[in-house]
Amino acid sequence: MPLPIETPAVLVDLDIARRNVHAFQAYADQHGIRVRPHIKTHKLPQMAELQLAAGAIGITCQKVSEAEAMVDGSPRITDVLITYNILGEAKLARLAGLHERVTLRVVADNPVVVDGMATYFADAAKPLTVLIECNTGADRCGVATPEAAAALARRIADAPGLRFDGLMTYPPADGAARVQAFMSEAKRLIEADGLEVPTITSGGTPSMMQAAEAPIATEYRPGTYIYNDRSLVARGVATWEDCALTVLATVVSVPAPNRAIIDAGSKVLTSDLLGLTGYGHVLGHDDIRIDQLSEEHGRLVSDGPIGLKVGEQVRVVPNHACVVTNMVDAVHIIGAGEPKAEWTVVARGRVL
Amino acid sequence: MPLPIETPAVLVDLDIARRNVHAFQAYADQHGIRVRPHIKTHKLPQMAELQLAAGAIGITCQKVSEAEAMVDGSPRITDVLITYNILGEAKLARLAGLHERVTLRVVADNPVVVDGMATYFADAAKPLTVLIECNTGADRCGVATPEAAAALARRIADAPGLRFDGLMTYPPADGAARVQAFMSEAKRLIEADGLEVPTITSGGTPSMMQAAEAPIATEYRPGTYIYNDRSLVARGVATWEDCALTVLATVVSVPAPNRAIIDAGSKVLTSDLLGLTGYGHVLGHDDIRIDQLSEEHGRLVSDGPIGLKVGEQVRVVPNHACVVTNMVDAVHIIGAGEPKAEWTVVARGRVL
Repeated sequence: MPLPIETPAVLVDLDIARRNVHAFQAYADQHGIRVRPHIKTHKLPQMAELQLAAGAIGITCQKVSEAEAMVDGSPRITDVLITYNILGEAKLARLAGLHERVTLRVVADNPVVVDGMATYFADAAKPLTVLIECNTGADRCGVATPEAAAALARRIADAPGLRFDGLMTYPPADGAARVQAFMSEAKRLIEADGLEVPTITSGGTPSMMQAAEAPIATEYRPGTYIYNDRSLVARGVATWEDCALTVLATVVSVPAPNRAIIDAGSKVLTSDLLGLTGYGHVLGHDDIRIDQLSEEHGRLVSDGPIGLKVGEQVRVVPNHACVVTNMVDAVHIIGAGEPKAEWTVVARGRVL
Repeated sequence: MPLPIETPAVLVDLDIARRNVHAFQAYADQHGIRVRPHIKTHKLPQMAELQLAAGAIGITCQKVSEAEAMVDGSPRITDVLITYNILGEAKLARLAGLHERVTLRVVADNPVVVDGMATYFADAAKPLTVLIECNTGADRCGVATPEAAAALARRIADAPGLRFDGLMTYPPADGAARVQAFMSEAKRLIEADGLEVPTITSGGTPSMMQAAEAPIATEYRPGTYIYNDRSLVARGVATWEDCALTVLATVVSVPAPNRAIIDAGSKVLTSDLLGLTGYGHVLGHDDIRIDQLSEEHGRLVSDGPIGLKVGEQVRVVPNHACVVTNMVDAVHIIGAGEPKAEWTVVARGRVL
């Protein structure tokens, strides 16, 4: 039976999402790890509320504008960590607005960012809380050494309007040992300098079930875990049944026996590969590969007859759920296999 | 001097865009080819007006909702071709709405699509005009043979509410000879069946300057030509000076001597590779590669010292301009190097 939903569309199975959230929360509770989910995966206040109700202590956002949309969207979102270097008066002004509304933490990995915040936030009575981003092997942002972390901690602590709160990292997969080593040494150096390190926060869904192997971390920021995706199935972290987000598409052409075209292309599935071959998994069709996307066309190919008809609906698990969320103005919420609601993705496209 | 624009942001240089549009229009005029630009690249009624003023006969859209947004956006858009198989009552109803407002053409490449339209559009006094999509080597949609095109033309012609108008193809690069061969044979077969073939429409920016090598085509549908991008520079079709669309980004971290992070990631630049290595070209920094994107981070690397400072702005030519347009709610229009206006991307995200 086709779903009564115009395609292409992004579907989110609420039962699966809830199960995924509770599964990691149970693990974290067992190991005494606080959970601060990254909302980039869903960009929905309703999902953040579900995560908070399950036991999360707050949310993580990547950009100021994303945090604004989430805070605007739910009175229950009162604790936000923005894991991004924030630069420039315009963004600092928006940050100050958020600082009035919620318990706010930000990060910095260099003196330019710290000094910019120290200039803008100068009120010792209401300091801005800052963590230091550390590079534990992902080689994106982050100070390179525990010594650099200690120096930056001192700089933050010396700014009257800033409050040093600890360390943050986005580690590579299977990076728990490196997190433990870097953070232990950084904490030791910072404490030797007379500062406390209340918070050490790590993240990443692929290795979340090894979070306890870096016991120095007090907090974990999983993102994709609420939806899962093809990349996590490929890593063995989830099964197809754990994938809450799927793309509903219609076969619009079967121009050759072993080729079909669906109405979902890169404008929905995106070109993210995450190391995989092909652009998604067609549920129930293990023999089919999505070998090419253009903006509005997804090309499905098979070795034998493709077994699809024009007009037929298919459901695709995308390579990367988070980026798919960002492509649509609204997602269709599914419960017990039926469409229940359409939720506006309020934090979509918030890149500032 | 930094631009007074919050980053990341998509900039469009209007002078360059105008020059690009006029350059192809001049070529097409010289060869007697009608121009029907694909609006997927800009998604802006203002840019469509620029193209129409330069001599374009109408516009091309990929989806019904995209056409609606463009027609809503400008009274000068009165002639629209939708190059997509349209299926299902909901989309056909929207198509009927457009059919009341503008001169409309659609395509089909299979009997299911033709029969669906024939059932919905049954008024011989106001028939829906249909072209047949042909596969000339791109292996996406399209009937596979001239014989199949002729059979589908007959089916369209026999439907009282449909009017057969000709043939459409999206050829592979350097496909002019294949277009000429396929279309000549299909036209011969269809005419032998007693039908006329008024329109033969081809497209694609990479080979647009070889359009005249398929003289059977009456019309050409370039898209990316208005902005150009890194993929077209790599093909030798454009230079960096011809690239009207750039992404303005700020360096937020220089965590290692040969690595910098900008605040534009896949949420602006997208992961489209189009066969290239890396995710864009940093203007003025030929030695720098964008080797990795996450949603909000672009990683820039170099062999020697990277030569960038935290807080510095850079401009990036993306691999693929069309998909970048789709990532933002508005673009910043630049004239004579200065910001002039912000234009809402009205057809962004229109996937239905």
